[in-house]
Amino acid sequence: MTETNIHAALLVIGDEILSGRTKDKNIGYIAEFLTNIGIDMKEVRVVPDEMDDIVDALNALRKRYAYVFTTGGIGPTHDDITADAVARALGVELYEDQRIIDLMLQRLKPEDLNESRRRMARIPRGAEHVANPISKVPGFKIENVIVMAGVPSIMQAMLDDVAPKLTTGARMLMETIEAAGIPEGPYAAALGDIAKAHPRTIIGSYPQFGEGRFRNQIVVRSKDGAALQAAVEAIGEMLKGMAPGGR
Amino acid sequence: MTETNIHAALLVIGDEILSGRTKDKNIGYIAEFLTNIGIDMKEVRVVPDEMDDIVDALNALRKRYAYVFTTGGIGPTHDDITADAVARALGVELYEDQRIIDLMLQRLKPEDLNESRRRMARIPRGAEHVANPISKVPGFKIENVIVMAGVPSIMQAMLDDVAPKLTTGARMLMETIEAAGIPEGPYAAALGDIAKAHPRTIIGSYPQFGEGRFRNQIVVRSKDGAALQAAVEAIGEMLKGMAPGGR
Repeated sequence: MTETNIHAALLVIGDEILSGRTKDKNIGYIAEFLTNIGIDMKEVRVVPDEMDDIVDALNALRKRYAYVFTTGGIGPTHDDITADAVARALGVELYEDQRIIDLMLQRLKPEDLNESRRRMARIPRGAEHVANPISKVPGFKIENVIVMAGVPSIMQAMLDDVAPKLTTGARMLMETIEAAGIPEGPYAAALGDIAKAHPRTIIGSYPQFGEGRFRNQIVVRSKDGAALQAAVEAIGEMLKGMAPGGR
Repeated sequence: MTETNIHAALLVIGDEILSGRTKDKNIGYIAEFLTNIGIDMKEVRVVPDEMDDIVDALNALRKRYAYVFTTGGIGPTHDDITADAVARALGVELYEDQRIIDLMLQRLKPEDLNESRRRMARIPRGAEHVANPISKVPGFKIENVIVMAGVPSIMQAMLDDVAPKLTTGARMLMETIEAAGIPEGPYAAALGDIAKAHPRTIIGSYPQFGEGRFRNQIVVRSKDGAALQAAVEAIGEMLKGMAPGGR
């Protein structure tokens, strides 16, 4: 049995993330969203608001993955250059889309539609809109590149709009096992053996540190429910009889 | 006047971030920390727990930036392969460091020091320790690569330990101007002109959406205090007399 795997990457565009001024809230949201619809995120990059950096990252990612999602850089100010970068990476021209101008005029008086705001109506030739129910100006999808806003609420609405149009694969199933109080050291070798014996699963062990001690969780992931269940049972057997404590 | 610029990248290693199961808390912390000590983070990548992906990313980043920080993948379980990947990327061997074994024996009985735990004592030949006051097992620094834990509290302690050993550059200064209630559209063109007229600054405009409306902040960054101040004043002049509101 083989499953369809659809792999994606996320490109986060913005100096403010790299300087630490703004704490990104989009990576975790998009990762979880895509996992839930059967698209596996395999890479994330964060790059500054610099044309060459954006174009290079776009070209590296769009050739390697089924989809590349971007966040950030689609506003009206001079540092918003994502549409320009996508057009350059794909070798197509930008044009002013009258449909976007019309959307903007639902919210703006004609005399307020200045040159900067018109920049937001420029999309690469061949792109389709990704609807923005919040502030109207859409993102866009061209080839396998999906361009979204950086503001989390708008990005999330755009993701809802574009998701039904994407090819999705088998959903990654996941089960979490609490290794209550048992440190990683005693079970690491046995867990490695279980991982080898269950090649259709991905098994990870994740320590969290809090209240002065570690709390480990073992996570099993698979696209095959039966394989997942078999590995989960093997791990349950392994943990049985292991003593909690700091050993 | 020229400033020293020290550029760094961060490589986040972990399936659990890409699946969305764990929400990364390290990117924002490290970005802000490095900004404050005069190291500019220019790129972040998140990759899965796969040898080739980690090695490729390490090699791309370590050649391009003064420092590459990594988080994740240094525990005792089979999915912890960061030390192996760093050794492979740098073409050096891994060895079991007796000093790390000794640190581990401060917390473990000798009979509990099993094969899996010994894996955590393997570091690349030539690496120096990055101290871990919380759970003892250190991270390490080799050439320009700094390997840290993924657990945020441990990563933060490691960053405190390694920071004084790093070459730092001029600190990026930053000032935030509240464009209280003024939308980006009316000021975007003038702000672009100011950005052009103040080439020693980096000027960004960041909308936040909440309570049904946008609240914009304009952020000016520079390593030159006078240049920063001049741009901030120009922006203050620009905003004077602009009407708040949805226009």
